[in-house]
Amino acid sequence: MRSIAIGLLGAGNVGCGVLRLLEDNAEAIAARIGARVVVKHVLLRHPGARRAFDIPASAKVTDAQTVLDDPDVRVIVEVMGGLEPARGYVMQALAHRKHVVSANKALLGTHGKELFAEATRRGVTIHFEAAVAGGIPILRTLREGLASDRILGITGIINGTSNFVLDAMTRTGASYADAVQAAQEAGFAEADPTMDVSGVDAAQKLALLALVAFGLRVDPTAIPTEGITRVEPVDVQSAAALGCVIRSIAHAELVDGRRLRARVHPVLVPTLHVLAGVYGSYNAVLVNSAALGRSLYYGRGAGMMPTGTAVVSDLVEVCRSVVAFADRGPPPEALGTIADVVPISNGDERHENYLRVRVPNVPGVLAAVAGCLGRHGVSIKRLYQDPRGPELPVDMVLVTEAIEDVRLRGALAEIDALETTLVPTMRLRLLPPEPLDG
Amino acid sequence: MRSIAIGLLGAGNVGCGVLRLLEDNAEAIAARIGARVVVKHVLLRHPGARRAFDIPASAKVTDAQTVLDDPDVRVIVEVMGGLEPARGYVMQALAHRKHVVSANKALLGTHGKELFAEATRRGVTIHFEAAVAGGIPILRTLREGLASDRILGITGIINGTSNFVLDAMTRTGASYADAVQAAQEAGFAEADPTMDVSGVDAAQKLALLALVAFGLRVDPTAIPTEGITRVEPVDVQSAAALGCVIRSIAHAELVDGRRLRARVHPVLVPTLHVLAGVYGSYNAVLVNSAALGRSLYYGRGAGMMPTGTAVVSDLVEVCRSVVAFADRGPPPEALGTIADVVPISNGDERHENYLRVRVPNVPGVLAAVAGCLGRHGVSIKRLYQDPRGPELPVDMVLVTEAIEDVRLRGALAEIDALETTLVPTMRLRLLPPEPLDG
Repeated sequence: MRSIAIGLLGAGNVGCGVLRLLEDNAEAIAARIGARVVVKHVLLRHPGARRAFDIPASAKVTDAQTVLDDPDVRVIVEVMGGLEPARGYVMQALAHRKHVVSANKALLGTHGKELFAEATRRGVTIHFEAAVAGGIPILRTLREGLASDRILGITGIINGTSNFVLDAMTRTGASYADAVQAAQEAGFAEADPTMDVSGVDAAQKLALLALVAFGLRVDPTAIPTEGITRVEPVDVQSAAALGCVIRSIAHAELVDGRRLRARVHPVLVPTLHVLAGVYGSYNAVLVNSAALGRSLYYGRGAGMMPTGTAVVSDLVEVCRSVVAFADRGPPPEALGTIADVVPISNGDERHENYLRVRVPNVPGVLAAVAGCLGRHGVSIKRLYQDPRGPELPVDMVLVTEAIEDVRLRGALAEIDALETTLVPTMRLRLLPPEPLDG
Repeated sequence: MRSIAIGLLGAGNVGCGVLRLLEDNAEAIAARIGARVVVKHVLLRHPGARRAFDIPASAKVTDAQTVLDDPDVRVIVEVMGGLEPARGYVMQALAHRKHVVSANKALLGTHGKELFAEATRRGVTIHFEAAVAGGIPILRTLREGLASDRILGITGIINGTSNFVLDAMTRTGASYADAVQAAQEAGFAEADPTMDVSGVDAAQKLALLALVAFGLRVDPTAIPTEGITRVEPVDVQSAAALGCVIRSIAHAELVDGRRLRARVHPVLVPTLHVLAGVYGSYNAVLVNSAALGRSLYYGRGAGMMPTGTAVVSDLVEVCRSVVAFADRGPPPEALGTIADVVPISNGDERHENYLRVRVPNVPGVLAAVAGCLGRHGVSIKRLYQDPRGPELPVDMVLVTEAIEDVRLRGALAEIDALETTLVPTMRLRLLPPEPLDG
C-alpha cells in the first residue's frame, strides 16, 4: 500500500488528539483512503513540553522549513493557532502545492481571502471543518450532504463558552461573573474569555459557515455582533417567565438569492425550540434549506478529541483526493468561485424584542418609556415590573410586538437618553417558535 | 465536460423529487462531480400517471431491460420501493457492474446480504442514505465525518409516523386512534400504518444504521421490537407528571467491541433531553462515539424533497467515484468486510421502568402487585394512583428503580397473571437524563 506523508504544524491539545486518532485508527483510515497516512514531521515550538501524545523523536522538528520545503509532504495540518507565523507557513505550504487542513478560525477569518486565492492559484485545497464547530461535521454536510440543495439560512450556537455561561446562569441562577468563573474552572473558558463572550469568535466562525453555505465571503468584523457580557440574572429569570431561555446565536441568511444578512447576538429562545435543548458547552447548527427544510447538527464544539476528529476527517478527505486525482489536478470544487460581500443592513428585519429598562422607583417613568416607544411606532405586547423597596431601582421588562429593527433602535436611543434610565437598556430579540408543520 | 448516464427505476414522489433536484441544481452538481449527470432512462410502471415532474418522452421507458442492459448507464437509482421486482432489477444492475443508489429500506433490510455480496463481487457500490432517515445525512456522517472515530452507540427517532402520533397525543391529549387519524390526514401516515406504528420500519432502518456504524449486519426481524399501539392518554399524562415525553426510539450499541445490542420501543424521555425536542414527523439520530462524544443529527425523515436530497447526494458521491476511479476499480471502502451477527439478549440491561397496571378499584390490589415486584427484587421508586369512581378501573402508575430487564419481565408476567390485572401491563423504559458534563 502506498503512503502519503503529512506534516503537522503544532502539537498542543488538538495536535495530540490528531496524532492519537491517526494511531488508534490507522487501519480503518488506510482502508478508507487506499493509502497509509505517515506523519513525517511534527513542528514543535516548545520541544521540551509535556504532551498528551508521545511523539517519536524522528518526527520532531523545530525548523518550519524542514516541513514546508519537504517535497514528500503532500498535506500540511495546521493546528498551531494564532495569526503569525501560521499565516506565513500556510502560504508557503500552498505555494509548494501542498493541501492544507486547518483548525484555525482566526487565521481563516482574518486572512481567508489571501489564503483561498493562493490555494486556487496553486490547484490545492484548504479544509477547515475543525475551525467552525469542533467535532460537528457541519461543513462536510453543507458541501456534500446538501450538495443538491440550496441553503437559505443558518442559525447556530457556535461558541461553547457563551453557551456554557448562559446555561449555567439559567440552571443555577448564577451571576454572569460567577458563571464565567465556573466555565473557567471547568475548562470551558480561557483566562481571558473576551474573544468568546464578545461574540467575536462566533462571528469568525459564522463567516466561514457563510463561505461554505452560500459561496459568499464576508469580513467577520463587518458582521453586527453583540456579546453576552450584559446579560444579568434578571434577564434569565424574565426569560423563564416568558417560557424562554437565553442563548447566543450566530445567524446568516441569503436575501434575494445573493445578498447576505448576518448577525451575532444573545436571543430569547422558546423552551420547546430545538436550540433551547443545547446545553453546557455544546454547539448546534440549524440549517434551513430549500429542499430538506430544517435540519440540525449538534455536538461538542471544542476539545482535544472532538476537534481532532474533525481535523482527521478533513485529512482523510484530502488524502482520498490525492489518491484519486493524483495526476489530474485537484477535485473540481476546489476551483469554485467565491463572491466578496458586505452584509446588508439589518434595519428592516422585524422581530419581537425583550427590553429591560432600569429606572428609579418614581412616578412617571413608565409613561416616559412608553412615550418613546409610541413615537417610533413600537407596540408593547407584554409588560412586567417586579415590586421592590422604594429606594431601589426597578427593572421594567417589556416585550414588543414585531417591529423593524431601525424603529426599535430609534426608540431605544430615546429611552436611554431619558434622565430616569439608569443603565443602557437591555434588548434581546425573540426567536420565533418552531413552525408546527408536522 | 463529460457526461455520466444514469437510469431511474420508479418515478413516484421521491423519483420526481430527484428529477427536480437534478434539473434545478444541474450546474452546481456538474461542478462538484466534474461531469454532467444525464438521466437517460426513467422506468415507469404507470406511464399515464400524473406526476410532480414533467419527464421528457425520450427518457420514458416501460421495459426494465432497456435500462438495465444499457452499457452507457453507470448508475441505477432505485426509488420504486417494494421487494419485487426491485430486488431482481438491482441484482441485474449490480451484475452489469452498475453502481446502485437506493431509497428502499425494506429491500435492503430483507435482501441486503445478497445485494451487498453481489456489489462486492462486482466491484461496485450500493448507497442508501435515503433509506434510513430521509434527508438527514446520517450515513455519510458515520462513514466520513466520523471516519476516524469509533461509534459506540446510536439512539434514533427514525419513524416519523410514530413520532407524529406520540407528539400529537402529547400536545393535544388525543387518543392513539385520533392521533393516527390526524397523522393520516396530514399525510404523515399510510392508510395502513402498521409497518410504522409496529416498529418494523424502525427496525429495518436500525439494521442499516448498525451496518454502517459498526460493520455488523443483523436481520431486522431479530431485533426486539415494540410498537406504540398500546400507548394511551393516561401514559402520556403520567409521563408529563414525571417530567417526560413519550418517544419511540431505535437503539443499537456495541458490547465488548464486537457484539450488538439492539431494540426498538417507546420510552420516557426527560423533557430537557435533546431527543424530547424532536417534534412532529421529524427524525433525529443521537450518536455516541469514542472521540467526539455525543452528537445529534436532526431533520425531515420523509417527504419528496428531503428524501430526494439524500438520493441526489448519494448520486453525486457515486459519480465522483466514477470520475475519480474510472480506470482503477471502485473506491477502497467498497470492499470493507461485514460480519453477520445476532443481537445479544437485552435481559441483563438495567433500566428504570414506567409501569401502568389497570386494576379494579378494590382493596388488596396494590399489595398483590407490590408482592410480584418484590419477589423479583424490583424496588418501587415512585407510585401514583388517580382517584376514580368506585365502579371504574384504576390505573396504578409505578416507576421502578433500575433493574435488570429479565427480572422485570418475570415480575410483569406474575402481575399480568393476577386475576385483578385487567389488561396487559404497560411498561416503558426511562431514558436517563443527558450527562451534565458541560
